[in-house]
Amino acid sequence: MGPHPAVAAIRLAVRRVLHDILNDHQGFPAQPDGARPDRTAERPPSPLVLVACSGGADSMALASALAFEAPKLGVRAGGVTVDHGLQPGSDLRADEVVLRLRGLGLDPVESVAVTVGRAGGPEAAARDARYAALDAAAERHGAAAVLLGHTRDDQAETVLLGLARGSGIRSLSGMAAVSGAGGRYRRPFLQLDRQTARKACMVQSLPVWDDPHNADPAYTRSRLRHEGLPALEKALGKGVVEALARTAQLSRDDADALDAWARQAEASVRDAAGLLECAKLYALPPAVRRRILRRAAIEAGAPAGALFARHIEEVDRLITGWRGQGAINLPGKVVAQRQGGRLVIRQG
Amino acid sequence: MGPHPAVAAIRLAVRRVLHDILNDHQGFPAQPDGARPDRTAERPPSPLVLVACSGGADSMALASALAFEAPKLGVRAGGVTVDHGLQPGSDLRADEVVLRLRGLGLDPVESVAVTVGRAGGPEAAARDARYAALDAAAERHGAAAVLLGHTRDDQAETVLLGLARGSGIRSLSGMAAVSGAGGRYRRPFLQLDRQTARKACMVQSLPVWDDPHNADPAYTRSRLRHEGLPALEKALGKGVVEALARTAQLSRDDADALDAWARQAEASVRDAAGLLECAKLYALPPAVRRRILRRAAIEAGAPAGALFARHIEEVDRLITGWRGQGAINLPGKVVAQRQGGRLVIRQG
Repeated sequence: MGPHPAVAAIRLAVRRVLHDILNDHQGFPAQPDGARPDRTAERPPSPLVLVACSGGADSMALASALAFEAPKLGVRAGGVTVDHGLQPGSDLRADEVVLRLRGLGLDPVESVAVTVGRAGGPEAAARDARYAALDAAAERHGAAAVLLGHTRDDQAETVLLGLARGSGIRSLSGMAAVSGAGGRYRRPFLQLDRQTARKACMVQSLPVWDDPHNADPAYTRSRLRHEGLPALEKALGKGVVEALARTAQLSRDDADALDAWARQAEASVRDAAGLLECAKLYALPPAVRRRILRRAAIEAGAPAGALFARHIEEVDRLITGWRGQGAINLPGKVVAQRQGGRLVIRQG
Repeated sequence: MGPHPAVAAIRLAVRRVLHDILNDHQGFPAQPDGARPDRTAERPPSPLVLVACSGGADSMALASALAFEAPKLGVRAGGVTVDHGLQPGSDLRADEVVLRLRGLGLDPVESVAVTVGRAGGPEAAARDARYAALDAAAERHGAAAVLLGHTRDDQAETVLLGLARGSGIRSLSGMAAVSGAGGRYRRPFLQLDRQTARKACMVQSLPVWDDPHNADPAYTRSRLRHEGLPALEKALGKGVVEALARTAQLSRDDADALDAWARQAEASVRDAAGLLECAKLYALPPAVRRRILRRAAIEAGAPAGALFARHIEEVDRLITGWRGQGAINLPGKVVAQRQGGRLVIRQG
């Protein structure tokens, strides 16, 4: 009898990603499935893959699957848990997660304490601190990759959060399966639902910890998870989470293609002095033109996060609705104005 | 003292669209604002603009604004109400709407009874019957345009309905401000919220009718309006409707640009015999390649509405993940297969 279907599903997801990691790191040939790696004969040494684990069901399931699959492929498996220091006793909890990860056979395993700032709100600040700590841990251990436990449900929530910004398809594209410097971060569960991860923990008798933040209505994502998304499912049907996750993938590919087009088109709309020519911009499709304007504004010093669709629309009207309007102020003290058939965007 | 802000807002929205209509119909020069058109001296005759009116707040507000603005621009204003025959007494209601539209000074005004079929579900069938009747009325009266009362809230609902399909950014692009044959249909209220339309009716003492379908939980859109969207707003904040409407506009522009790219690229990936070359398809960005595959499948006879993202993904794997897989069955008895470096898509 094989493993429970939920356990089989999480292991398959991790196995696929480990194969990808081995392929991407040509120095690390995959061992045939089931073969015992002969460490002494191996050059270079077997790669290390870390799992980022909060102790919650998703990342505990991920850790268990990594612990099971890695040895079969000649991969070393370790784990990192980040203590955000946001709740009393969080250090003890982190120690507990370390023990559980060691209990799964992971090595090295460590707990990293971080200080969460305030920039961008509580969720963004915690995320920034967490990724900085994971980056540092990956560097310290020379890890080939760090696995993250985000599920399809997390992806659906991320798409809705992006939708609420109303800033276009890039913000609908959610989390990438591969991201970070050199493709360091991998999300094996991005097409797996949260319920499967929970089930896999249950049938493997893995104790899991429910982060109280996940149920705290002070957090946007938590409200979305417990109220927004269920209401949307009730109105639209059970397939909403899957549809949102598919929207993420399609939007990502579309946004990549349009960004590539804009990069290519940008050279053709600049004059010899490097200024943007309004007539040539006008001839481009609006989607491409607006991306060029956005790139130009960011290049001139406008902070990407503060530059909204309405700013770009206003600059675009210098091209498409020219009636002698004056300079347009953008975030970061950047000014856009039309001068003699050229669009000049610079820090004022 | 000017009109109430809500009334000013609906009138401005209609005035802008009337100007667009006059610009688009070169034979119909706009009269200067406030000037009384001299009908006898006019050649060609002044254009007719119809409003499609259910008697609900949105379309009654639209009718009132059209009745006010049209004469000032030398435009004739008429109205059509469609009796869907779905409720007892709907014919009497339609007669009542006719009287109200005549009361606003619209002329011609007519009620058109339609028979709603079953194809595509109750909402789609009613919509199909309604647009067929409006098309016919526009032809019969030689109307330059038909105004529709869809608001920003309707647009937000349409985006969420598209999101639930998970079929990419075209289905996120909602309703167009201008659509139909020759740009016949115009939606002046697409950037106006429903509350403004209601308020405008109230302050003008216009009686309005609440379609019971709009509150019937048997209808997906109604569930979305009364449960899904409010829950989403509660989780994400009050700006959700505006963000969804902006997403629609951005997605539409992006989808248009990518469709144009795919149309252009398609010629370059076909060989002398008109077959798709796999190597050339492979070199394209996934977003462009999948659009070409979709177009090819539809051209071969697959019904667009039955062709889902997962079908196209499977065909795409013949290009990107070729390992000798067999023919792929698509809706409409269309078959896709790889033969000697060519992708052959045809009805089997």
